[in-house]
Amino acid sequence: MRIDAEFIQSHNGKTLSDHRESFAYLSGKLDRKGVDVSGFIQKISKFQIAIPSWALGTGGTRFGRFPGGGEPRSLEEKVDDVGLLHALNRASGAISLHIPWDIPSDVDAIKAHAASHGLVFDAVNSNTFQDQPAQAHSYKFGSLCHTSHAVRQQAIDHNLEVIRHGEALGSKSLTVWLADGSSFPGQMNFRKALQRTLDSLKEIYAGMPEDWKLFVEYKPYEPYFYSTVIQDWGTSHLLASELGDRAFTLVDLGHHLPNTNIEQIVATLMMRGKLGGFHFNDSKFGDDDLTVGALKPYQLFLIFNELVEGMEDPRSTNPSPAWMIDASHNLKDPLEDLLQSVEAIQLAYAQALLIDRPRLEEARESNDPAKAQELLQDAHRTDVRPLIAEARLRAGAAIQPIEAFRALEVRKRLIEERGAKSISTGL
Amino acid sequence: MRIDAEFIQSHNGKTLSDHRESFAYLSGKLDRKGVDVSGFIQKISKFQIAIPSWALGTGGTRFGRFPGGGEPRSLEEKVDDVGLLHALNRASGAISLHIPWDIPSDVDAIKAHAASHGLVFDAVNSNTFQDQPAQAHSYKFGSLCHTSHAVRQQAIDHNLEVIRHGEALGSKSLTVWLADGSSFPGQMNFRKALQRTLDSLKEIYAGMPEDWKLFVEYKPYEPYFYSTVIQDWGTSHLLASELGDRAFTLVDLGHHLPNTNIEQIVATLMMRGKLGGFHFNDSKFGDDDLTVGALKPYQLFLIFNELVEGMEDPRSTNPSPAWMIDASHNLKDPLEDLLQSVEAIQLAYAQALLIDRPRLEEARESNDPAKAQELLQDAHRTDVRPLIAEARLRAGAAIQPIEAFRALEVRKRLIEERGAKSISTGL
Amino acid sequence: MRIDAEFIQSHNGKTLSDHRESFAYLSGKLDRKGVDVSGFIQKISKFQIAIPSWALGTGGTRFGRFPGGGEPRSLEEKVDDVGLLHALNRASGAISLHIPWDIPSDVDAIKAHAASHGLVFDAVNSNTFQDQPAQAHSYKFGSLCHTSHAVRQQAIDHNLEVIRHGEALGSKSLTVWLADGSSFPGQMNFRKALQRTLDSLKEIYAGMPEDWKLFVEYKPYEPYFYSTVIQDWGTSHLLASELGDRAFTLVDLGHHLPNTNIEQIVATLMMRGKLGGFHFNDSKFGDDDLTVGALKPYQLFLIFNELVEGMEDPRSTNPSPAWMIDASHNLKDPLEDLLQSVEAIQLAYAQALLIDRPRLEEARESNDPAKAQELLQDAHRTDVRPLIAEARLRAGAAIQPIEAFRALEVRKRLIEERGAKSISTGL
Amino acid sequence: MRIDAEFIQSHNGKTLSDHRESFAYLSGKLDRKGVDVSGFIQKISKFQIAIPSWALGTGGTRFGRFPGGGEPRSLEEKVDDVGLLHALNRASGAISLHIPWDIPSDVDAIKAHAASHGLVFDAVNSNTFQDQPAQAHSYKFGSLCHTSHAVRQQAIDHNLEVIRHGEALGSKSLTVWLADGSSFPGQMNFRKALQRTLDSLKEIYAGMPEDWKLFVEYKPYEPYFYSTVIQDWGTSHLLASELGDRAFTLVDLGHHLPNTNIEQIVATLMMRGKLGGFHFNDSKFGDDDLTVGALKPYQLFLIFNELVEGMEDPRSTNPSPAWMIDASHNLKDPLEDLLQSVEAIQLAYAQALLIDRPRLEEARESNDPAKAQELLQDAHRTDVRPLIAEARLRAGAAIQPIEAFRALEVRKRLIEERGAKSISTGL
Repeated sequence: MRIDAEFIQSHNGKTLSDHRESFAYLSGKLDRKGVDVSGFIQKISKFQIAIPSWALGTGGTRFGRFPGGGEPRSLEEKVDDVGLLHALNRASGAISLHIPWDIPSDVDAIKAHAASHGLVFDAVNSNTFQDQPAQAHSYKFGSLCHTSHAVRQQAIDHNLEVIRHGEALGSKSLTVWLADGSSFPGQMNFRKALQRTLDSLKEIYAGMPEDWKLFVEYKPYEPYFYSTVIQDWGTSHLLASELGDRAFTLVDLGHHLPNTNIEQIVATLMMRGKLGGFHFNDSKFGDDDLTVGALKPYQLFLIFNELVEGMEDPRSTNPSPAWMIDASHNLKDPLEDLLQSVEAIQLAYAQALLIDRPRLEEARESNDPAKAQELLQDAHRTDVRPLIAEARLRAGAAIQPIEAFRALEVRKRLIEERGAKSISTGL
Repeated sequence: MRIDAEFIQSHNGKTLSDHRESFAYLSGKLDRKGVDVSGFIQKISKFQIAIPSWALGTGGTRFGRFPGGGEPRSLEEKVDDVGLLHALNRASGAISLHIPWDIPSDVDAIKAHAASHGLVFDAVNSNTFQDQPAQAHSYKFGSLCHTSHAVRQQAIDHNLEVIRHGEALGSKSLTVWLADGSSFPGQMNFRKALQRTLDSLKEIYAGMPEDWKLFVEYKPYEPYFYSTVIQDWGTSHLLASELGDRAFTLVDLGHHLPNTNIEQIVATLMMRGKLGGFHFNDSKFGDDDLTVGALKPYQLFLIFNELVEGMEDPRSTNPSPAWMIDASHNLKDPLEDLLQSVEAIQLAYAQALLIDRPRLEEARESNDPAKAQELLQDAHRTDVRPLIAEARLRAGAAIQPIEAFRALEVRKRLIEERGAKSISTGL
Repeated sequence: MRIDAEFIQSHNGKTLSDHRESFAYLSGKLDRKGVDVSGFIQKISKFQIAIPSWALGTGGTRFGRFPGGGEPRSLEEKVDDVGLLHALNRASGAISLHIPWDIPSDVDAIKAHAASHGLVFDAVNSNTFQDQPAQAHSYKFGSLCHTSHAVRQQAIDHNLEVIRHGEALGSKSLTVWLADGSSFPGQMNFRKALQRTLDSLKEIYAGMPEDWKLFVEYKPYEPYFYSTVIQDWGTSHLLASELGDRAFTLVDLGHHLPNTNIEQIVATLMMRGKLGGFHFNDSKFGDDDLTVGALKPYQLFLIFNELVEGMEDPRSTNPSPAWMIDASHNLKDPLEDLLQSVEAIQLAYAQALLIDRPRLEEARESNDPAKAQELLQDAHRTDVRPLIAEARLRAGAAIQPIEAFRALEVRKRLIEERGAKSISTGL
Repeated sequence: MRIDAEFIQSHNGKTLSDHRESFAYLSGKLDRKGVDVSGFIQKISKFQIAIPSWALGTGGTRFGRFPGGGEPRSLEEKVDDVGLLHALNRASGAISLHIPWDIPSDVDAIKAHAASHGLVFDAVNSNTFQDQPAQAHSYKFGSLCHTSHAVRQQAIDHNLEVIRHGEALGSKSLTVWLADGSSFPGQMNFRKALQRTLDSLKEIYAGMPEDWKLFVEYKPYEPYFYSTVIQDWGTSHLLASELGDRAFTLVDLGHHLPNTNIEQIVATLMMRGKLGGFHFNDSKFGDDDLTVGALKPYQLFLIFNELVEGMEDPRSTNPSPAWMIDASHNLKDPLEDLLQSVEAIQLAYAQALLIDRPRLEEARESNDPAKAQELLQDAHRTDVRPLIAEARLRAGAAIQPIEAFRALEVRKRLIEERGAKSISTGL
């Protein structure tokens, strides 16, 4: 199914006058503070967040999976789902594929299909954490770090193949999340494993087109429970530095030990020109992959404070980071969840843009933490929802995407189309 | 020094028209949603937060202390400081004393002094985590749990003496935070220590006036680093249950292991009628005692969601909890810090009051987590600052307390009065 | 396959003289310290650890599963596998079943089969965290706590059915691990959920035979990632207390927040007479379900220190706890892993038995933490492996179970019997 | 006081035959396994651990301090205390000074004094986390990272002065632990702070003699509670890499977030040739600074597994790390605590030396985690105390240092000499 512009316009009609009042009030206030509201809204509109193909179906845990219905049965239907989101919020204009789950049978057709939704293909993702049916060697004990040359070569070849698929689709980057690790003390020779991983990554890096970037994720645990080869940003940064100028660290919010100051990691990576991208989600305990902003919206805002500071610094050498959601939807409707996530990201971004940076720097220089806190809180406490809604309205999207999604009974219609028992490919 | 009403009125004048516009906008919106704005503001006004006497000076860590200036040199000056806060926000109408640091020399005089600021005396706090100069026995190895009967008796007697001081001042509750614990495996017989603690608490409980309450805090570590006798709410609840109807658990936000779901603990205690009180602060790593709302404002809101739900439940048997800030001000001006803390508490309370509870229950009953999240976020994302400001305005307090505090150069004047090297008694 | 006594005897022959020397040395030393070595070995021999039926196959994570081979295809083969373990170590004389995975088709036959291996049936486990094919209602949003009466009734009925199966097999207890929880703030009304859970448990409790016990597990998170209904021992203890004398808390080592002092929880529960049983495993990050003793053997020893103290206290009202391993074997051969786990438990138990308790109490009474530490470390640093080996030798088991397992090529033979692709029922 | 050799010899006499039996048994077993026991004991003997001057008195927490007695009142007496330890264990042959607490008035005299005890001066430590009485600028808001040039210069100058003191004493390295950080979001510009820190460190590095090393510590929090400038090994490594070949990372065991895999960090740093040194202690919750090995002896062993692997790797470019205890003694006698710590380090080192590395590598290469675990556990479960005792015996030290310390009533004599109220300088 597709959502047509008329429906959106008519749905917007119901809340338009309310919205206009709220927007007038807020833009008036910001105007008087010297904020260029139009420029502000343009920044919001330009900020596009990629949707991962694997987040369109119901996820699960090791204990079980409770499927919803109407899940996309093919790559085409995954593109359709992202198209639905983008029609509703005009902020999800990219899809990130996972190989081998999403190998297109007809590249041109799928590109045209995506284009018809206004979508492009973001970073491609390789998978060396599962064994595929026809696979010669198992990744049970690792892939790029494996003790056996044959396994490493298979994993390298897979990544090179992913790059070829991505090239055909117009992607410009490869994200490597390496599950490799160990579950028992003694199991792995840490130094050899790291060296082998670096050597493997070098071959992948060498196989990338000149205009591509390589994103190296880190994660402290899971699916292995004692060590992971790339346990933290320091290890990822070390690898990316050895690999070269087009290798970067990718930060996934859920991939940190309890209490980690993630915003400082972001700042450090941007200072080094090595922040490649972001996987947004939220969590309370581990890599819980929950809706962005559902648990710690202030932390998200603090991270955007660093991102905005880095992006707006004219001396920064850091390329514009890649933005992607990486979540798992065990309980909520995946599309509702993604709409909530995108909105939470936009709110945090908008609030971070509102921070009075000259006065913040002044407070910092004069060591006035109370004032610095006031300035951050002033931005965070501002109800910026009318700005996001206005950005959507101007882009032809819904003032209230989730309400529109529910009013249109999208899920019901998807179930009618695809069945109640469809399972998203790859899950 | 005292802040006179005229100053506040004149300071308010500068932002009055701005405030009126914001308040009109917000109250209009809430009106249309069916919120009784006046009743709402009355609830905010009635919500008073006690200030602990030990939070008025500069705190420190084991590594050092960097004093500010103008710290209160006596109990009278501590009362004055809380009076300053209360004059600015009309939300800090109580002071919580710590014995032996705050033993009044003339009870009637100090009561009259407090009354002149509009202050009452909240829970009194005992101290068995430090040795006082003239003390017969050391608390190095515990107090109420100590292996020696003489030490336990000394600690019991101290608590009874604290009750007597509190009675004279009009307090109605005793807060017992027990540092008792151990730093090494094997050091302590857990069961004997818990039994001795219970026995000691029984004697204290028996010594309380009939209309008093006993609050039992819990904390997982610090100042001992392996175990504490009352390590969690479960242990505190067990003790409070054994003690009787007037014994309750007190929750200090910083006294939890990483990732604890504190709001659920609050809900469980209220369900049992056993939540006695709250120590507000914020933290990232441990018992950091930072400004309330400075790190995790959404968590604070979620906690108030439970508190409001419990307080507004007509079937609840839980008495109205005691509200207190418990923070340590190592870097900020203590009074600015406390103004920020009180405001953060008020904002969280106001947002929690705004939650559309009937629809929330409906979402819960129909297992719609996306909708439940929308409802919570709608309340939390609302900029409720105009409501708090209006509550203050109506009570004769400052629209913007910190700005008023800075405009009046309160700290400068306190330093002139008390000197740059004054150290708050007890620190 | 079965392991016959002759093989074990002949395998023992290879290391017998080495063992005799080690045992002679150690028993000589202990003798001189006044330890009754024979009594000691009898205690070790009597300590039997139940094996859960679900730990006999390869486990997995949400990211995938890398199966081994020769996994048991039926309840009979699961009993056979535990029989193999018990033949090798004579310390795994019980099996704990999981319903509906392990419903016996012929109860008498399976009882006879188990008896032929020297095995009894330990606690039975219910499953309300997954949906079974023919199930009327889904547990997606909980079971005993569910908002819908029909779902709760279904879950209650399932537990009652589990009891009936257990009764037929000779079990004497039901373990309830409740996955119930929520993944998003606001999703669940904490108080109502806890009340409904208590009400449901009351019906199950009422349906137990008079000589049965109910074990209530707790867990802070997973498979839900914001809250669980029974988040900690305090909640479990509260439920068990309300239920009655035959309801107890069950401690699973992996079900705690970071840094929790588990040994103190054990001590408190035993003091209250409410420790029902134990699920042994080890972990670094969460509920990692790794081999017992693989990560934190000293913590395990400290827990046994409390267990032994509680078990040997003549005034204790706590019944003898149920001992069970609860682990997941993603990488190792499940049977090797279980042999390692049992040995680690035995070592910790033996070391805890060696603690010089009178002197420890003396050190505690005189507040001498250095001495208390010396006494614990003296026991833990003692190489007690010869004692465990001797206990095995006397019981007709292998001096070195894993070596025997490997020498006999058990896994190879199981693969021959059952195939390389067999998957343990339930996984 | 000094401990004379005769006392030790006579004290050893009491347990000599017991020791000889144990040693004979163990060395016989190791012999048969092909271990070169004499070479082994030489390695143990050569392993010397520096004692920090600040660990000789009673430490405290922010809540209080419970002093013992007989604390060293001067640098001379601190040297005496380390001399006492070294006499007892012949493994504490170095002292690490802290400036300004330990500025020697007569360098030659103190060097001679140390030499008379067989002691050398290890790394010197600077202090920019406290304000000294005569100091021009405050470190309240940082030192090397401070926004003010004058404060940074003062901190740089202090470090250069520390180097000069160290040079005079024969030290060869400077340890910089930088408390610098922030307690509130927004307070600090992370990137500027890190840049300023790097610039300041460059000046200190430039001021070091050619044969000196600079050790850069990291720590995630405390005394600041939101961020620290050098929050993790990645940041320290980044700074050390920028500084040059003689700058290294120093690992303090207590300076990590919960669940960090420290042993892997050690392995990574050694692989990069960047592990400069070690601060040993133990902890359960944070930087608890408890006795080494008191909480997590197996983790300590796993760390030594990596250290030994790195040290014995002929291709390693990592210089021999500096070994130091960094602990705080709040409850135990500081000297007893240090004796326990040194012994725990020696035991972990000895066990790590016992690991059968060829077979471990074989298990790793063949992905056999059960076997790898067996090999590590075999080493860790071996009671190596007789080897350490034998090393001490051969070096003229006590077979049982703590027993000797108690038999000699050292503390009692120190109190007689120095008084019950002496406070160690600097505390």
